[in-house]
Amino acid sequence: MHYPEHLQKLIAVFKKLPGVGTKSAERFAFHLLDWSEEKLLEISQVIESTPDRLKKCLECGCLMGKERCSFCQNPHRHQQVLCIVASPKDVFLIEETGEYRGLYHVLGGLFSPLHGQSLGPDVVETLKRRIHALEVKEMIIALDSTLEGDATALYLKKELEDVDVQISRPALGLPMGSSLDFIDGGTLAHALASRHTY
Amino acid sequence: MHYPEHLQKLIAVFKKLPGVGTKSAERFAFHLLDWSEEKLLEISQVIESTPDRLKKCLECGCLMGKERCSFCQNPHRHQQVLCIVASPKDVFLIEETGEYRGLYHVLGGLFSPLHGQSLGPDVVETLKRRIHALEVKEMIIALDSTLEGDATALYLKKELEDVDVQISRPALGLPMGSSLDFIDGGTLAHALASRHTY
Repeated sequence: MHYPEHLQKLIAVFKKLPGVGTKSAERFAFHLLDWSEEKLLEISQVIESTPDRLKKCLECGCLMGKERCSFCQNPHRHQQVLCIVASPKDVFLIEETGEYRGLYHVLGGLFSPLHGQSLGPDVVETLKRRIHALEVKEMIIALDSTLEGDATALYLKKELEDVDVQISRPALGLPMGSSLDFIDGGTLAHALASRHTY
Repeated sequence: MHYPEHLQKLIAVFKKLPGVGTKSAERFAFHLLDWSEEKLLEISQVIESTPDRLKKCLECGCLMGKERCSFCQNPHRHQQVLCIVASPKDVFLIEETGEYRGLYHVLGGLFSPLHGQSLGPDVVETLKRRIHALEVKEMIIALDSTLEGDATALYLKKELEDVDVQISRPALGLPMGSSLDFIDGGTLAHALASRHTY
């Protein structure tokens, strides 16, 4: 027996979310059936109005809460330090550390030939233009320490060879509170090589 | 730093789904930001139109695909066997086995005093009325084999003491393909007590 057509549509909607398979999507869809008409209307309006309410800054790609980007428009941020991140979410993660006071530059994705994703030449062009406009002195490539993140970092480094800017990446090492037992060999090797005087 | 207001709303929407915590809701919300305006509009319309498109049969509580309930209106189903389930989803699970040809009766919830859920007297009244109208001879209480399911089954059995109907529950035992190593003692005890000649 098949689900009613509309139920199948609902399940298909939820399956589009990351990490949600058929089983979870079914649970979500059946859960929705218990919600009131008002609640469903409210939810669909929140989703529908997202493109109007959450815009990305044309300059840096960060999410804007109101009409202006809170980073680009903030004179108290260091204008000559640029942190390159993959997605707008990473900006919030870095902001939460309270350790960074410069500007951001959101790439919008990583270089991943295996998944058919590439960084177009316009991404590099936009970045170069910003580096020149802001007279950036230091650039932190804060991408995932994965194959895709490393490939993207390497690609950017090569493309920016002729630009006079100091490039760095966050340190590799042991996560805080971790046990050596559960750390992979690569991370441990990096942590040992980058050991510091105690 | 806080998320923009609308992003917080989106996260709140996803947190309403069962088993979705803050971290997953954030992932879902940020994922949504990459979707096109058309896709978001389509999704919100699917959600919004759910109460119109998916109705529950007033008779048995099953989900109706079109305007009529495919069970109540089907003359080929056994009219005198009634299967009691907690939610419309259970109907699909039982139908998939292909082992049941009677009618259904969806309770809409389980008796769970700990979570402040009770079965009102109208639930029992509706059930009694259907039993009389259909002249039900056999009733299968197909509820979860949990504390709440057992409590609900016991409650129904007591309330229907004066009704002349044969009540049964699905067998307790080892799930197919299971290893004894991973079976709890209660289940194993039941499986042994209900052993059958081989």
